[in-house]
Amino acid sequence: MAPELQTESHVNGTSAKNVNGENGTKFPEKDRHSLVLSSFRCLVADIVQQFDGGHPGGAMGMAAMGIALWKYTMRYSPSNPNWFNRDRFVLSNGHCCIFQYCFLHLTGYSSMTKAQLLNYHSKEYNSLCPGHPEREIDGIEVTTGPLGQGIANAVGLAVASTHLAATYNRPGFDVVDNFIYCTVGDACLQEGVGLEALSLAGHWKLKNLIVLYDNNQITCDGSVDLCNTEDIDAKMKATGWNVIDIADANYDIESIVTALEQAKQSDKPTFINCRTIIGIGSAVQGKAAAHGASFGKDDVKSIKKHFNMDPEEHFIIPEAVQKFYAPLLEQGKKLEADYEDLLSRYAKAHPDLAEDFALRRAGKFAKNWEDLIPKIADIKTDNLPSRKSGGLVCNPLAQNINSFVVGTADLSPSVSMIWKDKRDFQHPDLRTECEINGDYTGRYLHYGVREHAMVAISNGLAAYNHGTIVPVTSTFLIFYMYAAPAVRMSALQRLPTLHIATHDCIGAGEDGPTHQPIALPTFFRSLPHVLFFRPADTEETAGAFISALQHFSLPSSQNAVPSHNSTNNSPSEKDPEESEPLTSIISLSRHNLTQLHAAHDKHPLPAALTSRAGVLKGGYTIHDPTDAKLTLLSTGSELALTCSIAALLQEKYSLPTRVVSMPCLPLFDKQSASYKSSVLPRRKMPHAVIEAYTLRGWERYADAGWGMTTFGRSGPGSETYGWFGFEKENIASAVTTWIKEGEKTGDGMWWLGGWTELAEGWKFGGAAP
Amino acid sequence: MAPELQTESHVNGTSAKNVNGENGTKFPEKDRHSLVLSSFRCLVADIVQQFDGGHPGGAMGMAAMGIALWKYTMRYSPSNPNWFNRDRFVLSNGHCCIFQYCFLHLTGYSSMTKAQLLNYHSKEYNSLCPGHPEREIDGIEVTTGPLGQGIANAVGLAVASTHLAATYNRPGFDVVDNFIYCTVGDACLQEGVGLEALSLAGHWKLKNLIVLYDNNQITCDGSVDLCNTEDIDAKMKATGWNVIDIADANYDIESIVTALEQAKQSDKPTFINCRTIIGIGSAVQGKAAAHGASFGKDDVKSIKKHFNMDPEEHFIIPEAVQKFYAPLLEQGKKLEADYEDLLSRYAKAHPDLAEDFALRRAGKFAKNWEDLIPKIADIKTDNLPSRKSGGLVCNPLAQNINSFVVGTADLSPSVSMIWKDKRDFQHPDLRTECEINGDYTGRYLHYGVREHAMVAISNGLAAYNHGTIVPVTSTFLIFYMYAAPAVRMSALQRLPTLHIATHDCIGAGEDGPTHQPIALPTFFRSLPHVLFFRPADTEETAGAFISALQHFSLPSSQNAVPSHNSTNNSPSEKDPEESEPLTSIISLSRHNLTQLHAAHDKHPLPAALTSRAGVLKGGYTIHDPTDAKLTLLSTGSELALTCSIAALLQEKYSLPTRVVSMPCLPLFDKQSASYKSSVLPRRKMPHAVIEAYTLRGWERYADAGWGMTTFGRSGPGSETYGWFGFEKENIASAVTTWIKEGEKTGDGMWWLGGWTELAEGWKFGGAAP
Repeated sequence: MAPELQTESHVNGTSAKNVNGENGTKFPEKDRHSLVLSSFRCLVADIVQQFDGGHPGGAMGMAAMGIALWKYTMRYSPSNPNWFNRDRFVLSNGHCCIFQYCFLHLTGYSSMTKAQLLNYHSKEYNSLCPGHPEREIDGIEVTTGPLGQGIANAVGLAVASTHLAATYNRPGFDVVDNFIYCTVGDACLQEGVGLEALSLAGHWKLKNLIVLYDNNQITCDGSVDLCNTEDIDAKMKATGWNVIDIADANYDIESIVTALEQAKQSDKPTFINCRTIIGIGSAVQGKAAAHGASFGKDDVKSIKKHFNMDPEEHFIIPEAVQKFYAPLLEQGKKLEADYEDLLSRYAKAHPDLAEDFALRRAGKFAKNWEDLIPKIADIKTDNLPSRKSGGLVCNPLAQNINSFVVGTADLSPSVSMIWKDKRDFQHPDLRTECEINGDYTGRYLHYGVREHAMVAISNGLAAYNHGTIVPVTSTFLIFYMYAAPAVRMSALQRLPTLHIATHDCIGAGEDGPTHQPIALPTFFRSLPHVLFFRPADTEETAGAFISALQHFSLPSSQNAVPSHNSTNNSPSEKDPEESEPLTSIISLSRHNLTQLHAAHDKHPLPAALTSRAGVLKGGYTIHDPTDAKLTLLSTGSELALTCSIAALLQEKYSLPTRVVSMPCLPLFDKQSASYKSSVLPRRKMPHAVIEAYTLRGWERYADAGWGMTTFGRSGPGSETYGWFGFEKENIASAVTTWIKEGEKTGDGMWWLGGWTELAEGWKFGGAAP
Repeated sequence: MAPELQTESHVNGTSAKNVNGENGTKFPEKDRHSLVLSSFRCLVADIVQQFDGGHPGGAMGMAAMGIALWKYTMRYSPSNPNWFNRDRFVLSNGHCCIFQYCFLHLTGYSSMTKAQLLNYHSKEYNSLCPGHPEREIDGIEVTTGPLGQGIANAVGLAVASTHLAATYNRPGFDVVDNFIYCTVGDACLQEGVGLEALSLAGHWKLKNLIVLYDNNQITCDGSVDLCNTEDIDAKMKATGWNVIDIADANYDIESIVTALEQAKQSDKPTFINCRTIIGIGSAVQGKAAAHGASFGKDDVKSIKKHFNMDPEEHFIIPEAVQKFYAPLLEQGKKLEADYEDLLSRYAKAHPDLAEDFALRRAGKFAKNWEDLIPKIADIKTDNLPSRKSGGLVCNPLAQNINSFVVGTADLSPSVSMIWKDKRDFQHPDLRTECEINGDYTGRYLHYGVREHAMVAISNGLAAYNHGTIVPVTSTFLIFYMYAAPAVRMSALQRLPTLHIATHDCIGAGEDGPTHQPIALPTFFRSLPHVLFFRPADTEETAGAFISALQHFSLPSSQNAVPSHNSTNNSPSEKDPEESEPLTSIISLSRHNLTQLHAAHDKHPLPAALTSRAGVLKGGYTIHDPTDAKLTLLSTGSELALTCSIAALLQEKYSLPTRVVSMPCLPLFDKQSASYKSSVLPRRKMPHAVIEAYTLRGWERYADAGWGMTTFGRSGPGSETYGWFGFEKENIASAVTTWIKEGEKTGDGMWWLGGWTELAEGWKFGGAAP
């Protein structure tokens, strides 16, 4: 049901409750509230009218919530938007961004000038008022818009704050004690990722998280009742939240402030159900028409009349309103100064801890991470699944560097991310039937089977402060499809997050086609600012982690290739984006892989050696016989097979064959033209790729390929490879046939310009190829 | 908290409650229950031990739930797995599939022989016991495994049944009255897609949906308490469900049956919280170790001793147990016969309705859909956003064909899918503040902001019976990333579903980079069994819908190109997969597009005409001047720009340029080699693609391209195109420079074999290119 509409008596002055409810000291300027609310609402209506587009309704409805937050509740410093211990605000209902932009201007963020504020929906290229809030703008903590992401980010910010407080606070020294405030609309409570995150926040008892629900009961389609009739307060209570219900959040600023104060005392996260009226004061108030369009010039005039503002004036911020917000700039400076003083005293009382905390605030690792990566000499040549290689590389990092916060979507036994003596991040009072070793200082997160929230929460962890926390997530590669929207948001925001994706390709085996990714790598390889690594063995896995960490652009990670790397490849080309963080995914196998970094009995082509330095360039030659007639490219678990095919082609078909490992396509793309053509001499010989995925995208590097043309199949991993023809005799034969057929054309470079799918189509229920 | 472990007294006989609780008539064979339970559990342990892998624990824990369902509750016919009015069972916790396979064998599904049952985790290529249940197998309604999908499918099945019942049932003639039963584990209640679907089921009051929660409190990581401590019963009640709690679901079959009977009487969907013990009877019962691995030979022996079975015998199904299940085959035949009788009487009482119902059961459309597609002569040449073109084509189909069930994730005003006098699918008692015209006969679904559940539910709608319901979903293209795992499940199961994805590419405009897809088309183009269409105007949109419907392989849609199509292209090549349904996505613009199907003043290259017949082949030539020196490829909203570039290249640079429209890459790939080389004469001239996405994958068709190299930006749509250089002068200049530079090499086919990204990199905050 929509909330009851307000009577006129609320509009033209403070409500009866406001006058009688609170004492004067807490709200010294409450006589101005009516004007402050009215002018805010008219300002929003004007700005949205200006270029005839945007989302005015929610911003107008939430005005009182905003004043309660920015004026009376949140601790922040407009002159230093990144002050470390500030409260964080997340606008999960990101389409209401004009709400936040207005408050950034009113409270004194210097970059948000009035001219900028009027750029909302303009043609201005350098606008700081895009259609959804973007993290690059001062005062915006995370980029929101795709619904449900922001609330999950807020949970991540709350985990970060809770964890840092437990780690660094000492009696009398609350060096981390900020709150996370988040506004949500109906949609964030409908989206799965939001529901997952809310459930985790309740489980973790994140008492520093306060969510304000802009309950206007209106969505694009009309009344929320069209698609949602649940009892949200009861649902949130059942999910472990403290719930406060506010009947009038349109005008009653004092009640909202009181609720926020109660929330800060709770031992649970708090959900404040704020009943509002979308587009309040307009002709379409309380209706869907107020959601995502301007009101029209006539209605804007009528809105101003309704709020006792001059209908002929535009973008007015009365002097009294400016005075109302004016003290916040100085208040912020005072908060900062007090905090600096606290840090000074903390440094004296707890010098070691303070030093560590200073490193963390600067985003620097407490230890030199390069020294923690296993050296090539230490890597065994025994067969190993690369998911275990991932553990060999990551576990020492996680164990020794307290910035690492590692989690899994309920696949701890499978993804190898547990290190010795790891401690869980859990509420210290948690008791379970199973053994548990956890409190808020823990750095291992059990996300449950909530992949999407896992990555969205990790975005919040990374956004808390650059480099203070390095979030690592883990699950099967196929389930990163659930999390893909959050991976994209990480990349879009250039958040340094690392994702360990195991059980890649059909090698996942018995779990069958539902669990075998076929096309997903193509997506991640196409996504800007993402490095998708598919290492072939432990050595390449080391390279993938090194490259991922280098591309986080953290202060301590700007070294070049670690000095213990020996390689006959030339140094990595300068990465034009190296100063801006990239998101990384490392894709690993469930099944055993032959180690290829050293010559040994089981190596199918002992001269072809993998190297971590090669990984840093995205692709590199591992075998280059004289008079080569063919280049084979591969990645990950198919590289050893490709080596064996190259050996067979030489032995049986007298076809000298080069082998190229291509663990990271976007990195390879960034190398120089001369390097790329040295690795892939396309105009000198045919190139064919072998990878157990659909091959769309590989045409950039090869002329033909053996890949997947359909979904996978349940069976032991080695059998599934066989069913789809990933066998050396089979592929060697197909490649030679392709070459012979092509040579008949008599064209000197017959192979160029026509992609050849060497693997035939395959159908469920049909015969194996 | 984990449930209390059972005492021995429960194990070796029926519990006290069983003996005293119910009268004998309802459970005539309850004296056999103990043996039936014991032998089932030992059978599961044996089968999983056989090849040393699989998921035994949940299957053993759910044994009593299974007997309550297959023996005492569900109506089905093993000899006719697809009997129309059967109850549907969905194993949302798909990893427990051996549970379902065993019941299919025990109850008499003829294809599930004992030999097949023992194929679980075998190397057998034609196994009917893959690691997760697959829809192609008799008795399996939907393929499950990725957690949360199955429960959402079950909601779709329940919507289908509810809708068909409301449409076709008449007093005394309940021709559709089946129930949907679904088992879930902890994970399906954690996954966002599951939570979204549960919320909708509560809203829609789907009283024919009964969910049994296998509450064993164990996940891969250990106790569920590690990641979830919410009050699930209270949460489900708040979500609008009837909740029943069963303290002992390990042995107490009668209580489960009684709960199921109560559930069938409820006016809401019912959630039965069944407390079970994972791996009951094993040494690791109640522990995570019982979840996803065999028990080991010694423990299997000890399990058998525990259950009074012979430890030295394997795969035993005692004769008494066979007798217990034996009547079900005949019972099923009787149900079928009764139903046939009912249908006969229905045909006499309601002949018109019965005829329509028969068409629906056969998956045939009530009207000839080809006649409903706008003819080319009826299409105007006015500028139109292709999202509106989508409405022009789809609305008549939806209005006139009662198989169409159309829905949106709360974007009704934006996606143009509402037809005249559409009726909502809603509980008839629903009242809202807004106007509503809905009951269960309605065919328009308000899914709320729940994209993932929307598509997963549509999979259930399609899976109810082939072609009976054609589900259409709609939202912005970017939000199909949220739904991608369900789109993939549709493709994997070859379900005929249609998805209308509007606001594609940077043309989405002011909403900014969070709402502008950049890489998503590459993914959908790479996914097997998916047709991703990006039509350029209304004519191509008509072609996209025709092709999508043709590829649904419905009985009435096997016609060739509709006869009213005139075209100078040759008929579509035979599609080797045409007998198997494909999933389609039609990607449409927010902004106005020039109509290109006819010559007119605003057409940038009036000789270049789009055609629906061309769309059916995936790609086709629209402009082919003599002595052409270059081919430009494009799709969707960039095709008109590409035409204007071709015109400019001719005028200003005297470069005769071919133009190819490529609305559906996978369809084009299926054409003959001769057709493909006629459209794309790669070895005769350079080819360049123009599309506002990252271009990975286009190398299959072109040598160079102007696309996106980073995320988008907020601004009016025309401005965002400009910022990223999508302007005719700009691209024409880049293309000619590329050609001139290449020609310097003196190589006759310099353009082949080296991909050229014509658009330069672009950075947030940097200057526009």
